[in-house]
Amino acid sequence: MDLSSARSSLKTIQEKLSAYGHALAIISYDGATTAPKGTASNRAHSIGILSEEIYKYSTSPETIEVFNFLDNSKDALSLEERREIELLLKDVREMEKIPMDEYVEFDKLLVEADDVWHTAKETNDFALFEPYLEKIFETTKRFALYVEPDKNPYDHLLGKYEDGLNQETCDNFFEKVRSRLVPLIEKASSMPEIDDSFITDGDFSKDKQIELSDYLMELIGLDRQHVGISETEHPFTTSLGSHKDVRITTHYHENNFVSSMYSVIHEGGHALYDTGSKDEYAYTALDGGVSMSIHESQSRFYENIIGRSYEFIETIYPKVTELFPQLINYSAADLYRAVNKIMPSLIRTEADETTYCLHVMIRYELEKRIMNGSLKVHDLPSEWNRLYKEYLGVDVPDDKRGVLQDSHWAGGLIGYFPSYALGSAYGVQFLNLMNESFNVYDDVADGIFSRINAWNRDNIWEHGCLYKASDLLGRIFKDGFDPDEYLDYLEAKAKRVYDF
Amino acid sequence: MDLSSARSSLKTIQEKLSAYGHALAIISYDGATTAPKGTASNRAHSIGILSEEIYKYSTSPETIEVFNFLDNSKDALSLEERREIELLLKDVREMEKIPMDEYVEFDKLLVEADDVWHTAKETNDFALFEPYLEKIFETTKRFALYVEPDKNPYDHLLGKYEDGLNQETCDNFFEKVRSRLVPLIEKASSMPEIDDSFITDGDFSKDKQIELSDYLMELIGLDRQHVGISETEHPFTTSLGSHKDVRITTHYHENNFVSSMYSVIHEGGHALYDTGSKDEYAYTALDGGVSMSIHESQSRFYENIIGRSYEFIETIYPKVTELFPQLINYSAADLYRAVNKIMPSLIRTEADETTYCLHVMIRYELEKRIMNGSLKVHDLPSEWNRLYKEYLGVDVPDDKRGVLQDSHWAGGLIGYFPSYALGSAYGVQFLNLMNESFNVYDDVADGIFSRINAWNRDNIWEHGCLYKASDLLGRIFKDGFDPDEYLDYLEAKAKRVYDF
Repeated sequence: MDLSSARSSLKTIQEKLSAYGHALAIISYDGATTAPKGTASNRAHSIGILSEEIYKYSTSPETIEVFNFLDNSKDALSLEERREIELLLKDVREMEKIPMDEYVEFDKLLVEADDVWHTAKETNDFALFEPYLEKIFETTKRFALYVEPDKNPYDHLLGKYEDGLNQETCDNFFEKVRSRLVPLIEKASSMPEIDDSFITDGDFSKDKQIELSDYLMELIGLDRQHVGISETEHPFTTSLGSHKDVRITTHYHENNFVSSMYSVIHEGGHALYDTGSKDEYAYTALDGGVSMSIHESQSRFYENIIGRSYEFIETIYPKVTELFPQLINYSAADLYRAVNKIMPSLIRTEADETTYCLHVMIRYELEKRIMNGSLKVHDLPSEWNRLYKEYLGVDVPDDKRGVLQDSHWAGGLIGYFPSYALGSAYGVQFLNLMNESFNVYDDVADGIFSRINAWNRDNIWEHGCLYKASDLLGRIFKDGFDPDEYLDYLEAKAKRVYDF
Repeated sequence: MDLSSARSSLKTIQEKLSAYGHALAIISYDGATTAPKGTASNRAHSIGILSEEIYKYSTSPETIEVFNFLDNSKDALSLEERREIELLLKDVREMEKIPMDEYVEFDKLLVEADDVWHTAKETNDFALFEPYLEKIFETTKRFALYVEPDKNPYDHLLGKYEDGLNQETCDNFFEKVRSRLVPLIEKASSMPEIDDSFITDGDFSKDKQIELSDYLMELIGLDRQHVGISETEHPFTTSLGSHKDVRITTHYHENNFVSSMYSVIHEGGHALYDTGSKDEYAYTALDGGVSMSIHESQSRFYENIIGRSYEFIETIYPKVTELFPQLINYSAADLYRAVNKIMPSLIRTEADETTYCLHVMIRYELEKRIMNGSLKVHDLPSEWNRLYKEYLGVDVPDDKRGVLQDSHWAGGLIGYFPSYALGSAYGVQFLNLMNESFNVYDDVADGIFSRINAWNRDNIWEHGCLYKASDLLGRIFKDGFDPDEYLDYLEAKAKRVYDF
C-alpha cells in the first residue's frame, strides 16, 4: 500500500459508510414518519442485515489496514485527514470490542423497542415497554464495559455524546444550576400567574400550523432545498447520507400552536448546524455535528435565546395573528410573557426555559442510578414520579405524561440528556460573544438572521467534526465555559418577564 | 460445499439481497414522497454505492458457486428452491454481462432523471428532460444487447416484464384490440354525451378524499397494518424488503375526486397481490408478484372490473355522498355512467376503460420505434401528439399533458406499458372464471370482498413468483388466453352504459 492508494481507499470506505448510514437512517425515519403500524419487524430484519454489513466492513482487515497505514503516516496527512482517521479508528476500535452478533441484535432491538414505545405511550402501558427498556439499559451497560472495561459505564456513555464529559462534571454543573434555579422558580411562582391559556388551550388548525412551520423555517434561514419537514410522535432531526439532505420533524397539537412552533425552531437549529458543514466534508467522517451538547447548543439557541426573545415574538407577531386571527386581542407583549411563563410542568419538550433544566436533571439522575445499579427499570415510573414531585412540585398523572414521554431511551440514547442542559448553557455564552460584534436582538427585531447564522457558521457549523467538541469550545470560549453566564441570563429574563 | 451449507448460504444471500433491495426502494420512495427538492444527487450518490454493492455481491464467485452447486443438485431440491435458483441465476447471468460501472451509472442516472422529469413536467419543458431520456433509451438498448446480443432489444425488454412476451404477440394483440375498440368508441361517440362534470369539475377537499382513500382500502380488504398510503406526482406501488411492508401512493386533485379514487383502487390491487405472497416467501426470490402483466391484471381488475361496476358504485354511494354532500343530487346510476363515459382524452391514468388501451398502444408503438431506431427521442413529442390525434382524435395542448405525463420512462421502465393492456384482458378472463364459482357482482353489491380476494389469493397472490407468468396463466386458463373475452366485456359494458 502506498499513500496515494490508501487515500483513495479512505475515500471509498467513508463513502460506503455514508451510503450504509443513509440506508439505516432512512429506514428508521420512514418507521417514525410514514410506515404502517405492523412493519417494525420487517424493518428490524433489514436493519439487522445492513448493520451486520457495516460491522463486517468496518472491522475487516482490509479496512483496518488502510486506517493503520494512514495513522502511521500522520505527518504526510492534512489536518482533515488526520481527524478523519482519528474518528474512524476510534469507532472501529470500539466496534471490534463488541461481538458482531450482539451489535446486530442491539440494532434490531432498537427498531422493535421504538415501535413498542409508540404503542406503550399511546396506551399508557409502561409494563409493555419495560422488558425492552430493561434490555436496552442492560445491553448499553454491557457494551460500555466491552469498550472501556475499566471505566464507569455511565461515564463512558456521557463521553460518547460529548468527548470527555463525566458524572463529576455533570454533577457539578447540575448542582450549580439547581442552586440558582430553584430559588428563581420559587420567586416566579410567588408572582401573579401569567395567562397563557390563549395559546395553550385554543383552536389552531393543523393547516395553519403547517404554514407557520414553513414561515419559521424560511425566517431562520433554513435551505428548504435540502431540509424537509415531516410529522412524528416525537420531534427529531436526522441527516440522510450527508449534510445535503436533512429532515426535521414536528408534532402538531391543535389546541396549542406554540408546542410545534418551538419544535420546528429547535429542530431547525439542529438542521442549520447539520446543513452548515463544509461541502467538501460530505461523505466523510467530518460531516455533520461533532457532539450532542454542541448540537443542542444550536437547537436551544434558536428555540429559546432567539425564539423566546421579545424581539422574535415582535417579528413573528404579524404572521401569527394573520394565521390565527383570534390572537389579535392579545399583544406581542402578552405572547412574549405567555411563552416565557415559568411554571413547573409535566412535559420536557414543552417546559419553559427556566424549569427545563430540572426536567433534564431528573432524567440524568435516573439514568445514572440505573447504570450504577441503584435503581431497577421496573421502579423507574415511581421514581420518575417521586422526582417530579420533589424537584418540580408536580404530580404525574400517568406514565404517558411521565416516564414514557420521551423517545430517547427507546432509541438507545442513554447519556444523551445532559447535552440539552449543557447545550443551553453554551448557547448563552455564544450569545454574549456574538453581542460583542453586533447587537443580536436588533437583528432579530428586524427579522435578519444573516449575521447570527454567519457567526454560528464561522465558529461552529462549517467545521463539522474537524475539532473535538472540547477543542471547538476552547477556540470559542477564550476564558473557558462559565455556566454562570447561562444562569445570569435566565435570571435577567425572568426579571423582565415578571417585572420583579 | 455440501447441500446443507449451500442451502444456508442461499438463505443468507436472499436475505441480504432483500435488505439491499429494501434500502434502494425506500431511498427512491422517499425521493418520490417526502424528500426536499435539492436532494436528488445526494440520493444518487448513495444509490450508486449500494447498487455497486449489490452488483459485486450478486456476481461474486462465492455467490455464484452457491447457485451453481444448487443448480447441479436440482433433484434434491424442493419446487420452491429450484425456482429460487432459477430466478437468481437468471438475474446474475444477466447482470454479469453488464459492466459494473455501467450498471451503477444507470441506477444513478435514474435517480437524477426522475428528479428532472418532475421539474420538466411541472414546467412543461421536454427539452430539459430530453438528454436524460435519450440516455435512458440508449442505455436500455445497450444493456439489452449485452444480455441477449442475438435478440431484438425491444423483444428482450418486453420479455423482462412478462416472460416470453415479444413484439409479434403484442402486435397481434393490439391489432385485435384496435379492430374492435375503434368502432366501439365511434359508436359511443355517436350517442348523446354523458355529463360527468359533477365529478370532474367540482370541489372535493383533500381531507375528504383522504377519508375516502381509507374507506376504499378497508373495503377492498387491504391490511392497513402492512400497507401504507402517501402522495406523489404519479401514483405507484412499492414493496420494502418483503411483502410485509407495501406502500401505495396517489395524487389528489381537488376538482376531481374520482382521479385519486381509481388510483387508490388500482394501486390497492397491486398491493393486494404483493401482500398476498405466502409468508414463508418473505426474503426469498419468490416474494411478490411474478410479472407486470399479472400485476396489472390485479390492479386493473380492482380498478375497473370491480371499481367501475354498477354494483361497486352502489356500494360506495352512501359513503361518497356523505363525504361530498353536493353529489346527493346525482344518483348512483348517474355516477356509474359518469365514471364509465367513453371519451377520447389526454391522460392515460384518467382514461375510461375502453379508450385506455389506445393510450397504451401509442406508448407501445413509440417505444418500439425508438428501440428499433426509426424514431429519435427528440421527435417523440411531435410523434406523440400525431398519434393522439390519429388514434384518439384529440389535440395535445402541451407536453405536460402529453409525452411528459407518465413517470415510467424516467424510471427506466421501457417495455412495461403493454402490461397494462394485457393485464386488463387477463382480468376479464379471471372475472369469467370467478363467475363460474359464485356471482362476483352480487358480492360486490353486498360490499363483500372475501370470496373475490380468496379466488385471487388461491390462484395468483399466494404463489408469488413460484410459477413463471405463462405457467401461472396456464394453470388458470385451461383453454388459453382469449382477448375476445376482454373485448366482449367492453362491448357489453358500453351497451349497458350507453343503452344502445
